[in-house]
Amino acid sequence: MVKVGIIGVGTVGTSVAQILKDNADVISARAGVEIVVKCGVVKDLGKDRGLDINLSDNINDVLDDDEIDIVVELMGGVEEAFEVVKRALSSGKAVVTANKALLAYHRYELQDMAKDIAFEYEASVAGGIPIINALRDGLSANHIESIMGIMNGTSNYMLTEMRDEGVSYDAILKEAQDLGYAEADPTFDIGGYDAAHKLLILASIAYGIDAKPEDILIEGIENISQEDIAFAKEFGYVIKLLGIAKKDANEVELRVHACLINEEEMIAKIDGVMNAISVVGDKVGETLYYGPGAGGDATASAVIANIIDIARSGKSAPMLGFDKPLEGRLTLKATADINSKYYLRINVSDRTGVLAKLAKIFEKHNISIETMLQRPSQANSANLLISTHIALERDIQNMIEEIQELDFVNAAPVMIRIV
Amino acid sequence: MVKVGIIGVGTVGTSVAQILKDNADVISARAGVEIVVKCGVVKDLGKDRGLDINLSDNINDVLDDDEIDIVVELMGGVEEAFEVVKRALSSGKAVVTANKALLAYHRYELQDMAKDIAFEYEASVAGGIPIINALRDGLSANHIESIMGIMNGTSNYMLTEMRDEGVSYDAILKEAQDLGYAEADPTFDIGGYDAAHKLLILASIAYGIDAKPEDILIEGIENISQEDIAFAKEFGYVIKLLGIAKKDANEVELRVHACLINEEEMIAKIDGVMNAISVVGDKVGETLYYGPGAGGDATASAVIANIIDIARSGKSAPMLGFDKPLEGRLTLKATADINSKYYLRINVSDRTGVLAKLAKIFEKHNISIETMLQRPSQANSANLLISTHIALERDIQNMIEEIQELDFVNAAPVMIRIV
Repeated sequence: MVKVGIIGVGTVGTSVAQILKDNADVISARAGVEIVVKCGVVKDLGKDRGLDINLSDNINDVLDDDEIDIVVELMGGVEEAFEVVKRALSSGKAVVTANKALLAYHRYELQDMAKDIAFEYEASVAGGIPIINALRDGLSANHIESIMGIMNGTSNYMLTEMRDEGVSYDAILKEAQDLGYAEADPTFDIGGYDAAHKLLILASIAYGIDAKPEDILIEGIENISQEDIAFAKEFGYVIKLLGIAKKDANEVELRVHACLINEEEMIAKIDGVMNAISVVGDKVGETLYYGPGAGGDATASAVIANIIDIARSGKSAPMLGFDKPLEGRLTLKATADINSKYYLRINVSDRTGVLAKLAKIFEKHNISIETMLQRPSQANSANLLISTHIALERDIQNMIEEIQELDFVNAAPVMIRIV
Repeated sequence: MVKVGIIGVGTVGTSVAQILKDNADVISARAGVEIVVKCGVVKDLGKDRGLDINLSDNINDVLDDDEIDIVVELMGGVEEAFEVVKRALSSGKAVVTANKALLAYHRYELQDMAKDIAFEYEASVAGGIPIINALRDGLSANHIESIMGIMNGTSNYMLTEMRDEGVSYDAILKEAQDLGYAEADPTFDIGGYDAAHKLLILASIAYGIDAKPEDILIEGIENISQEDIAFAKEFGYVIKLLGIAKKDANEVELRVHACLINEEEMIAKIDGVMNAISVVGDKVGETLYYGPGAGGDATASAVIANIIDIARSGKSAPMLGFDKPLEGRLTLKATADINSKYYLRINVSDRTGVLAKLAKIFEKHNISIETMLQRPSQANSANLLISTHIALERDIQNMIEEIQELDFVNAAPVMIRIV
């Protein structure tokens, strides 16, 4: 019998306890042993969770209990959770967590601490999709060329609805909040931070690259409008918030931002709240993993898969998938050095000479235009919708800075990268 | 250092040896040890494979070599391969295979033999997609409700081209043969047998169900015509050759056949030679796995992932994912008991009274029509394209038998199941 202590019995923790009971038949047949929850730690003992497990409001009832083999950390947060899992590991308990923020900041310290003991985190990326499993174990023969993923269901739901129903950003944000897909403060999801945490975890497994959220390019979907969506449709693109990791010679690009992506790509076909991650390996080519990225039961499915793995065989792989540096000289590419095609929406006053002036500025910054549409906007103004050939991020940023100072430009230009 | 012997150095075996060399940096970092090919066994020593590994034409040079830790079986076939892997296991060597036919017939005997030693077979299903990994380890918390997969790239390529280019079945088969996607004798691929082998392996992991190819419904795509594709388009369907495993109370349906499937489903969006497998778990919901189902390098990627797993931790999970019966009372559903909606194409002589007579026969067999189209065919004949409400396979089969005997019916009706 394997005994589990759950720290944090919220939505996911409740699902973990419930599924261990509901599906005990297949779980014990697969694990080879029975798995039981010995104790769940909660802040408020008074709240009824509809579970028949022992609850405590004292974390030591899990951490100091020698009978507990596996600590499931579902408390969230970064530093406090870090202290808790350190204590668990140092007392020889295996750890399973769904905490992406913890890993975004402390995964390398945890890898060092968990050399001889299992530390698993399947649920931290893309909920119920076994992507850690696939990337760390299933694709281990490959140099990873790129990872490109829809890693945030809230943003994908909003972008899908904006495209299919023609609703505005503000309207769909309110609807997502009403449906419970978006938080009252939605910044973490729609600002790209949630996706960035997940991307950093995947990039460590793929490349061994160490970076924190502060080190990489993170943008959200706040500036996307119906005009951008119309432009995308016209030119065969779909707009998605993507987390991207890409190897280019000895550098790795890590970035989260809205993208225009060719509608024929598999990842462009993923709609609604679902997540999907495309991984290109140098030998296998493209594989893609699709499923629910959130939800109590889906996330618990991943947590329990880790528990079963540990019950079967203890530690079966290095935490991040490698024991020695993967590809020694890989470093993080500076954001300014990224190459991409770009889409720009520039709102200008509708007077003569505007186009000529803009064209000159594009030329000055070495940026070559691929397509341009002009659409009337409010009275006396027009939107210029422009896509460029491949350009350097540094040049685009400099150009945008110059453009937004022009007297005939009415608002900061909106830029979306094209992949 | 882990030493590997490869039995059968054809396309996949050559890729395995080449990738172990090309990607030695990431492979050894991930495995924690160096992995080298000590010997490859071939039939014809004279053939140049462009590899710098030791070759032998004597299988005992691998099987009797105590220094070899892992035997990679890539010889193909059933009984001879079975004898080889039995010898390897009984001398304490781990085995990795890509041989789906071997597993379709002998997986339970192998599971018994490999209780204490690793026997891995990721490459046997869907080539480079780590689907065994996902189903056996990533979704282990779930009762599996269904598996539905495009498991044969040749058939999917042909169906995609027939739809997109409007070409006939015979023309596209020839093209697929010219491109090397289809064998000179294509029966194994387009008759559904290849997909059936893979389905049986997945069904064992999901349900613990034991069945052989002879026990289940296997049909191919040989009867699909442009008329069927046009009907599908008109009603929002796509035609795919699917392997389907589905739990219904205490029975499991296993079947491979062409299907009409709603074009909005993720699996309907998989085009060309790619494979994809959708798995529905009772807790996680639907997840889907997409990638290349064949090819030397893609298949070798899966073979090497297994080698790395074994190098990391020996045996990390039971071969089929369970130690005790999974769900004790599950039995194979008889084909006649399957429930489905059906599509029928019936070529009839164009005379009065035909429709009334057919309608009567449908009624007699308890089959209720959902939609019907009549299209002119050759002179004096017409095609009736009919979809039914849910009916019993037994009733449909009896009805088809009766219909094809009618004097105004010009050919055996074509039936495609609708999922």
